[in-house]
Amino acid sequence: MDLGTAEQAAITSGGDFWHTAPVESAGIPAVTVTDGPHGVRMQAGDGDLLAGVPATCFPPAVASASTWDPELLRRMGEALGDECRAQDVAVLLGPGVNLKRTPLGGRNFEYFSEDPILTGVLATEWVRGLQSRGVGASLKHFAVNSQETERMRISADVDERTLREIYLRAFQRVVTKAQPWTVMCAYNRINGVYASENHWLLTEVLRGEWGFEGLVVSDWGAVVDRVRAVAAGLDLTMPGPDADGDAALVAAVESGDLDPDLLRRSAERVREMIVKAGKRPAGGYDAEAHHALAREIAGRAIVLLKNDGDLLPLGSPATLAVIGEFARTPRYQGGGSSQITPTRLDDALTEITAAAGGEVRFAAGYTVAGDADEGLLAEAVAVAKAADVAVVFVGSVHETEGADRTSIDLPATQVTLIERVAAANPRTVVVLSNGAVVATRPWDRKVPALVEGWLLGQAAGSALADVLFGRVNPSGRLAETIPVKLADHPSHLDFPGEHGHVRYGEGLHIGYRGFDAREQEVAYPFGFGLSYTTFGYGAARATATATGVEVRVPVTNTGARDGREVVQVYVNLPGSRVRRAPRELKAFASVPIAAGETADVVLTVDRDDLAYWDVRLGRWIVEGGEYLIEVGASSRDVRASVTVHVPGDPDRVPLTTESSVGEWFADPRGAEVLGAAFAEAAGDGPLPAMTEEVLMMLASLPLARLAAFPGSPLSAGDLEKLVAAANY
Amino acid sequence: MDLGTAEQAAITSGGDFWHTAPVESAGIPAVTVTDGPHGVRMQAGDGDLLAGVPATCFPPAVASASTWDPELLRRMGEALGDECRAQDVAVLLGPGVNLKRTPLGGRNFEYFSEDPILTGVLATEWVRGLQSRGVGASLKHFAVNSQETERMRISADVDERTLREIYLRAFQRVVTKAQPWTVMCAYNRINGVYASENHWLLTEVLRGEWGFEGLVVSDWGAVVDRVRAVAAGLDLTMPGPDADGDAALVAAVESGDLDPDLLRRSAERVREMIVKAGKRPAGGYDAEAHHALAREIAGRAIVLLKNDGDLLPLGSPATLAVIGEFARTPRYQGGGSSQITPTRLDDALTEITAAAGGEVRFAAGYTVAGDADEGLLAEAVAVAKAADVAVVFVGSVHETEGADRTSIDLPATQVTLIERVAAANPRTVVVLSNGAVVATRPWDRKVPALVEGWLLGQAAGSALADVLFGRVNPSGRLAETIPVKLADHPSHLDFPGEHGHVRYGEGLHIGYRGFDAREQEVAYPFGFGLSYTTFGYGAARATATATGVEVRVPVTNTGARDGREVVQVYVNLPGSRVRRAPRELKAFASVPIAAGETADVVLTVDRDDLAYWDVRLGRWIVEGGEYLIEVGASSRDVRASVTVHVPGDPDRVPLTTESSVGEWFADPRGAEVLGAAFAEAAGDGPLPAMTEEVLMMLASLPLARLAAFPGSPLSAGDLEKLVAAANY
Repeated sequence: MDLGTAEQAAITSGGDFWHTAPVESAGIPAVTVTDGPHGVRMQAGDGDLLAGVPATCFPPAVASASTWDPELLRRMGEALGDECRAQDVAVLLGPGVNLKRTPLGGRNFEYFSEDPILTGVLATEWVRGLQSRGVGASLKHFAVNSQETERMRISADVDERTLREIYLRAFQRVVTKAQPWTVMCAYNRINGVYASENHWLLTEVLRGEWGFEGLVVSDWGAVVDRVRAVAAGLDLTMPGPDADGDAALVAAVESGDLDPDLLRRSAERVREMIVKAGKRPAGGYDAEAHHALAREIAGRAIVLLKNDGDLLPLGSPATLAVIGEFARTPRYQGGGSSQITPTRLDDALTEITAAAGGEVRFAAGYTVAGDADEGLLAEAVAVAKAADVAVVFVGSVHETEGADRTSIDLPATQVTLIERVAAANPRTVVVLSNGAVVATRPWDRKVPALVEGWLLGQAAGSALADVLFGRVNPSGRLAETIPVKLADHPSHLDFPGEHGHVRYGEGLHIGYRGFDAREQEVAYPFGFGLSYTTFGYGAARATATATGVEVRVPVTNTGARDGREVVQVYVNLPGSRVRRAPRELKAFASVPIAAGETADVVLTVDRDDLAYWDVRLGRWIVEGGEYLIEVGASSRDVRASVTVHVPGDPDRVPLTTESSVGEWFADPRGAEVLGAAFAEAAGDGPLPAMTEEVLMMLASLPLARLAAFPGSPLSAGDLEKLVAAANY
Repeated sequence: MDLGTAEQAAITSGGDFWHTAPVESAGIPAVTVTDGPHGVRMQAGDGDLLAGVPATCFPPAVASASTWDPELLRRMGEALGDECRAQDVAVLLGPGVNLKRTPLGGRNFEYFSEDPILTGVLATEWVRGLQSRGVGASLKHFAVNSQETERMRISADVDERTLREIYLRAFQRVVTKAQPWTVMCAYNRINGVYASENHWLLTEVLRGEWGFEGLVVSDWGAVVDRVRAVAAGLDLTMPGPDADGDAALVAAVESGDLDPDLLRRSAERVREMIVKAGKRPAGGYDAEAHHALAREIAGRAIVLLKNDGDLLPLGSPATLAVIGEFARTPRYQGGGSSQITPTRLDDALTEITAAAGGEVRFAAGYTVAGDADEGLLAEAVAVAKAADVAVVFVGSVHETEGADRTSIDLPATQVTLIERVAAANPRTVVVLSNGAVVATRPWDRKVPALVEGWLLGQAAGSALADVLFGRVNPSGRLAETIPVKLADHPSHLDFPGEHGHVRYGEGLHIGYRGFDAREQEVAYPFGFGLSYTTFGYGAARATATATGVEVRVPVTNTGARDGREVVQVYVNLPGSRVRRAPRELKAFASVPIAAGETADVVLTVDRDDLAYWDVRLGRWIVEGGEYLIEVGASSRDVRASVTVHVPGDPDRVPLTTESSVGEWFADPRGAEVLGAAFAEAAGDGPLPAMTEEVLMMLASLPLARLAAFPGSPLSAGDLEKLVAAANY
């Protein structure tokens, strides 16, 4: 690198909002970075920052995650890469792999799920797909950026085990398996330290432990202090230019406050990224093919939650009522930086009308803003009453970056609409459009069929018609629990925090982990989704290997239609030395199975994914023992279970004078050493008789405290000798 | 103080297990300190540490707290003071005011409640009563000593607001209102620092903020390092002697590692306590009168949980079945350091037999160890079947210091016994003896009457007979919630912790606060208890005063029996800037009301008790606003409510460059200053039109980050001037 300090400083901040800073003297061009993650959002002109040129609006992550199919995510990544090439984009800002800590999170629609493995597996394939086209990903928002309230300053206060096992785990998987070109640091603080200034996070963990080779870019406006940021491991500050910050960096290098190697290395990483981007070929893309892909993914993302009496698929009703403004004016994406100007837009009303054999009658029921008056409601009821089947489209009115929701309820007018339509026509199907879960109780008890349609991207309408009429047999599964009510949610007591801090009080028990640990009723559990066919499971087998556990289970399509089953593997270690959720997802597979056929499904649990983070040792430990492997069609529908012995990692904790008497005796060498010391103290006589109560209290006593007690068999002088002997 | 350094060191550790160290040259005698808190446990002879000479076993705190009557606690304190005098005890080790974080806590029976105000009010009167006799109290275990598992080392990891508002609040009340002679520091660590070495806790908070004037004594064996302990503010290390520690203190003073004033002051405090103790007159006590007091308190402590069809009081059934070994062999106290050798012991079987008009037949049902065989069960069923009414005594088998429970369920054999007896005789009363809540679902649905008898001390049997036969009209109220199941409990996800740490994940939401915040069903709510009469409430009035809020409510005994109502005041501030539990107990009164009479009950909420701990300002703040005052017969039985305006404390937080744009505009002076700056930047033209979305994002942006954005109306150079102008 032949750049001077000033040039190094300049290239580590942006050239403008969406470009890196060129260094013409060194022949380094500017490259374009732009928003994702479910489409390529190129700003159109110099005006509104949030208006983009047309691009395919693929299903947002809330939907794509519901496919539980890494293959689909890879294909989406490839298609996005092709669109980036067509727009000369070097880095697409995605995927977003923050976990959905609360259903109120304003950006939940941009995130995958409440589980780190589901999120990590899907995001890894998205990155692989994108980067296979020579375009870089930006894994974001690193880290623990789970809310919009006070997002620029809030400190996410999380204990280290929870950080490691939950909030960092998807990032770790994507980094180690797919090496995204860039990682985007988040706005917020983590345990009091800004992500952009967090040396532990950006350097020790990300590069040191995970081996990240790429560039760390800031979220737009996330850098508080350029010098502290570069010292912590941040490379590229966006947006730019930032003349004050550049000058501060130069001054810090000159004064010796900043190691010049750190700035040089950051500048080098920016240049490496630009060089890599320069190698991608130009190219166009087939907008119709991409729309078809968006439709395919959307169809696979829809989750059939309820289908009493096989009301769906619709067949050919003579008259079909389509009710709800969202059937005509689709809710298909959220607001904020991810918002795409679509290449085209399918609405459900048109698609249903085209697919239906008979007459289709429409009533809006409510306005685009979500309001309704008695006239709209009465019209809807009349239309529903006169039809063979009524399909009611409802959903959330507004979900956007920048604001968390305050409720998970549907607008009251929509609930009224559902209840009146269902009263008028018992054959009522409800279709939801929403970016994060909405409460379904108690109104879902009143309708026979319920379709969770999320925000499905520009092919929302055609994909919904595909499922309603059975051209697609639904196989989507919930990637987040639908609770009975908001107050049930594990995050409920600690959201959105106050005075700059949000305590992650539920710790490890995010999402289904918390509902399961508290034995709570839920409306629809994590992993749940119905099909138009049925599946039967045979006995599961599990084999421990050097790299993990291989699980095999035969699954039979016992119905009359071809379909897909999402087979899920949950793991627990009964009697573990650490707290564990009752069931943790460790592997899954979306498997197409023809009617009447049996698939021998093989799932692999990585040994790494069995590890817990040991806070004493400061590392991942696979605890040895008999693991319970549960194979389920959802987190609460276990179809087969088996145990398997997994050998443990070395994990001896050295004995100290603060180790308890019980810990000394639980350690073979410690027991020998301490037993001998006690015997010596007793001399020829026996130790004083001890009651069970005294023994119980003794076991919890640290050795040093025992030695300090009057009449102790040990003296303070013995302690260091004992410790040395025990830790030979 | 004319003691040399060596003598100062010697007097700050114990002379033996139960005495201070005398300094004969200075004429300082040894004094006796011994275990409480519900009796005077003087070790008998030199043998078993846990065997005591006979003393009155008053009801343990689990029971005395259920009286909700500070007056009774004061009388208990006076009686204990008299017994201390008779035994030449200078300091009685109590009261224990740790909150019951989990129903599994092994020492719950020694603690009062899950509420800091209930605990603090009752303990204050206990201390006043004891100390009125010239005997010192030892307020324990300071602090956050809520579990027995790993009690010598566990770090209770608690955020500061929770510490202040929940876990320290009862200590604060007792210290500021009753000045106990001593405070006992706990075994455990608090946020990583041993209580015995916690300068913040023992010096800054206890002495600096609360004005504690007495002596800090260690729990027995809690000191890890004498020098660090004295430096932190610990005065007296127990037990002793501790020659090594004395020598270390002398060496630290000589080397300059320890400020000699700290040791001198600790020694002075020990001497002051000994001098104070020397002034108490000798005296005896009337064992029969104390037994009568123990019976009175026990009768008031019993909580009537269920009484369908007014099955109780018993009247004079012709045949009465008394079932359960605990009727003959009372469970009346827990194990460990608080265990008393009683002066006498009343069993329920004898007392019931004496009180019953008709025939009483007994069946053991199970053994003292809690086991049962088919023969015992069959005998019990036969006895029950032949009787007019069956009273079944069941309870927990073992509760003790040193071990937490692992379940809240009754022994399975006892549940079987209840169910079989109830099936045999629909007129079945269940009487519980337990030191902490036990699950009552689902078996309580099968019995018409349920009496919570806790551990009632040596008069347990007579007190239970008093209530069963109506000589005492029950007025006890739950001081802890009875959950439907253990997994519902707020502490459930984080108990007992692992690897040396227990996260208080539920934060402020201890006990009923958590159940209410999560809108959970409970078996019996905090504050609940029935009477043999009924009470009606009139309208409540609330008046803000300089020192708090005065609440008045007329309560009428609408039944035919004299009785007592425990009137409870719960407070909330809707729309508060900080998270608050839906209802927080702030005042209560146990009021005797004759049949048909009306009492005009006056309750005073201290202004201090309305304050929350503001973590930004580091102090207590009464937030101004319209407080909701709910007057209830339990936490879930609100009978009258009223709002009252309470003026707030000054609480302006200075604006900084890290304050958000929204915060600047919310502050009158900030809005003026920043508005002017924006207007100046716009010059003659208007500011660029902003969409609602951009404005929303702008509001959350710290001022410094706004200034750093390209095209910002502010520059970095403006910031400090703006801050100075805003904080004039």
